[in-house]
Amino acid sequence: METQLKCEIISIGNELLIGKVVNTNASWLAERLTRLGVAVRRITVVGDSLSEISLCVKEAISRKSSYIITTGGLGPTYDDITLEGLAMALDRPFTIIPTALEMVRRKYESMGEGLTDARVKMAKMPEGAEPVPNPAGTAPAMRIVVGNTVIYALPGVPREMEAIFDESVSKTVSKSSGFKVAELSYRVIGIKESTLAPLISRVKELYPSVYIKSHPKSVEEKPWIEMYFSVFHRDEASAKNMVSEVAKKLADLIEENYGQVVYSRESSAPI
Amino acid sequence: METQLKCEIISIGNELLIGKVVNTNASWLAERLTRLGVAVRRITVVGDSLSEISLCVKEAISRKSSYIITTGGLGPTYDDITLEGLAMALDRPFTIIPTALEMVRRKYESMGEGLTDARVKMAKMPEGAEPVPNPAGTAPAMRIVVGNTVIYALPGVPREMEAIFDESVSKTVSKSSGFKVAELSYRVIGIKESTLAPLISRVKELYPSVYIKSHPKSVEEKPWIEMYFSVFHRDEASAKNMVSEVAKKLADLIEENYGQVVYSRESSAPI
Repeated sequence: METQLKCEIISIGNELLIGKVVNTNASWLAERLTRLGVAVRRITVVGDSLSEISLCVKEAISRKSSYIITTGGLGPTYDDITLEGLAMALDRPFTIIPTALEMVRRKYESMGEGLTDARVKMAKMPEGAEPVPNPAGTAPAMRIVVGNTVIYALPGVPREMEAIFDESVSKTVSKSSGFKVAELSYRVIGIKESTLAPLISRVKELYPSVYIKSHPKSVEEKPWIEMYFSVFHRDEASAKNMVSEVAKKLADLIEENYGQVVYSRESSAPI
Repeated sequence: METQLKCEIISIGNELLIGKVVNTNASWLAERLTRLGVAVRRITVVGDSLSEISLCVKEAISRKSSYIITTGGLGPTYDDITLEGLAMALDRPFTIIPTALEMVRRKYESMGEGLTDARVKMAKMPEGAEPVPNPAGTAPAMRIVVGNTVIYALPGVPREMEAIFDESVSKTVSKSSGFKVAELSYRVIGIKESTLAPLISRVKELYPSVYIKSHPKSVEEKPWIEMYFSVFHRDEASAKNMVSEVAKKLADLIEENYGQVVYSRESSAPI
């Protein structure tokens, strides 16, 4: 058996150090990483301080994990300084990354708003970093490779952190740890997310290892929910079977309860 | 003004690194310590490994906090190795402490039972340690002084950890600190965090010693921002006055700039 990949988690935020917020992000990530075959060796919580963040990241790099994942400090406010701390730790310039700025600009444009200094700030990253799309918020996440270590910086808002992990980070991680991913998504039209929630919970209880996420969307007052499912497994066929089974289970529950037929996204045939 | 006392928390247990257990012990301790005027600088989670525990404790000692508090790994099972890890970190013999053994013996005697190897193990500590009574369980906690740092090792069972902290540790800590904390929070509805950011920065510039944190929240597309303020001061009245002044300053800026009245959380009266 190959050696297990190792990961460290660094959670950044004064709210964690004063006990105002429980560090559920770290346990959520630890559980996901464990399931993807990665060993979490250490979780460190530090405050919103450039020197502390930089020191802590340098220490983690020196312990030579395959992955370092930070959470928190990516937003627009004065105390969101994770990426500046990373630039300091890596001794790289802290600079506007054009692809990140484009992501931020397009987010605000879609809300009919323009860029401000506070918004441009969310596109500043260490030189050489790539932005990672944030499907649930405005601040892009970040990925940077340092020697044999891949560092991801994710937001602190759980909903955003989870969406970015499940839709981007998990794929890279599972590829390197030998896991296969199977995904599936479809649209549910005419049902509110809060109405759907208990059905999703029931499916989640039956299949606790499956990732199920509802994304409320809309175009010109026609709202719909995009349902997304993913499964990781060492065996690809098992992953595919499982994800189909789970997606169908939810579609069946929706039909039983609300008489709505859920159509598959590609084929426009019922699931 | 004196320097604020500093503390590090070290949480020990594989269950935390696989995400099976959320680290509520750390946030509980962090909140208590903050309220007692102590600044928690770092929280570290490591697994049940002698080398990891020892390394982590040595690192914390080198950062020269007044207090280091560990949780977990004091019980009778094979993987309860915190005190052995501490002995290794401090380069002291790991030995039966007679006063600790007496505590354990009396606990089991009161239940009509005698000592066994597994029970005697709970009285083994680094040489020079004192046992701290555990009013809610059988494994004594531990206190040891290393230079200017006091190290406490508390159990991982929350009920026991909390009882020992409140009945023993808190008294020592509050005697040595002397700080009071005042807190305040309210909701800001209908304004984006990035829009609020420059106003928060202005208030932060006026009151640099105050902790101000915005927490974006939402329920089904109705977003709001929870604003949280805290101030430490040796004098309680000064802390309270300062925190009210700062919270009001931000509320006034919001009203001036966006015409939104901020309501206080408890009274639903404007701030």
